[in-house]
Amino acid sequence: MTSDVRLIEIKEDILSDNTVQAEELKRRLKEKKTFLLNLMSSPGSGKTSLILRTIERLKERFSIGVLEADIDSMVDAEKVAASGVRAVQLKTGGFCHLDAAMVRTGLEAFDLDGLDLVIIENVGNLVCPAEFDTGSARNAMILSVPEGDDKPLKYPLMFSVCQVLLVNKVDYLGLSDFNMDLLKERVRKLNGGIKIIEVSCRTGEGIDEWAGWLANEVEEYIR
Amino acid sequence: MTSDVRLIEIKEDILSDNTVQAEELKRRLKEKKTFLLNLMSSPGSGKTSLILRTIERLKERFSIGVLEADIDSMVDAEKVAASGVRAVQLKTGGFCHLDAAMVRTGLEAFDLDGLDLVIIENVGNLVCPAEFDTGSARNAMILSVPEGDDKPLKYPLMFSVCQVLLVNKVDYLGLSDFNMDLLKERVRKLNGGIKIIEVSCRTGEGIDEWAGWLANEVEEYIR
Repeated sequence: MTSDVRLIEIKEDILSDNTVQAEELKRRLKEKKTFLLNLMSSPGSGKTSLILRTIERLKERFSIGVLEADIDSMVDAEKVAASGVRAVQLKTGGFCHLDAAMVRTGLEAFDLDGLDLVIIENVGNLVCPAEFDTGSARNAMILSVPEGDDKPLKYPLMFSVCQVLLVNKVDYLGLSDFNMDLLKERVRKLNGGIKIIEVSCRTGEGIDEWAGWLANEVEEYIR
Repeated sequence: MTSDVRLIEIKEDILSDNTVQAEELKRRLKEKKTFLLNLMSSPGSGKTSLILRTIERLKERFSIGVLEADIDSMVDAEKVAASGVRAVQLKTGGFCHLDAAMVRTGLEAFDLDGLDLVIIENVGNLVCPAEFDTGSARNAMILSVPEGDDKPLKYPLMFSVCQVLLVNKVDYLGLSDFNMDLLKERVRKLNGGIKIIEVSCRTGEGIDEWAGWLANEVEEYIR
């Protein structure tokens, strides 16, 4: 038996166990009326910046918490806490993704009765986080323009499991050969129902549309 | 026992098995005088572009092969093959990294007696590939300017295991708040001996320095 075959079996085992835990967590969050958003992307695509923009727009309307996953630092949680919402840092200690059990542990640090919206900033990675249901109500991903329009061809699962795609750093569009129409065509081939929003966390472009979409999702869920 | 503890044990098991396989592969490559370079980065940082630039500069001097790792596509291997060197595509089928056994399998598709240099384009990911010795003589990583200067704080292992860091897309420097001095300081705290080269695969800036460094390493190894 080769080493990769063994690894696949282990992964399947972990994945089915995770699905059970994710379903339990979803039931609990629905009872508590806490909307959990799982935000995923490559390193440096703009997850923390998007979260800060989202807090700016929605903190008067909802009570918000942020669960930061990082392998070995607190920098993002410190930035988020400075914006005035509750932030919890989960150090994953080398893990490349969050699973439902890690998220449950992180959520224990919040009082869920007082929270409408918790945003998970997942580990920066387009591969592993896509495989693990975190118990979230919605999965969102960011692709930034400098990463290129070919990413749906290379990381198809990530594009398939998300309900919304933010294409960030659109202020870089003129500088690159990124083809937005081609990107959208590639994404929609994988996931016909996905919502695609063009944004720039730097200039603020598109943030109203994103905040509007998210606010509607949260309202529908918690009412 | 919690699910994460179980996962750690599995990983350690896989890692120690991988180390043995990587050492075997290193011995075999040294005998064959084939220099194996393991190139890692986030998705979209410019691995394929750097490989194409490297082939351009070094293909008259060395016989080169490229081992492309991709979860589910052939696009990179097709681009590389079009540049006139031998390319092998390894579809990792969801795996987030290459290990030594996968690399050995990929290398079987080459005639190593005729090759001086094989470049591995690892899966786009700053986490998992850093944990697995592929049997390479040298590890190189790319960080692109749009990803931000805080990445050494978040993905320290990757910066620690590489002998050379290419900072790519330096033509974007004027557009962002990326601080090159701060980046270098953060990287050198993790890895005092690392060589750092600023490049732009688009404009060609710094490619001479990179190709010179790599050519020296290959010459020393194969002579």
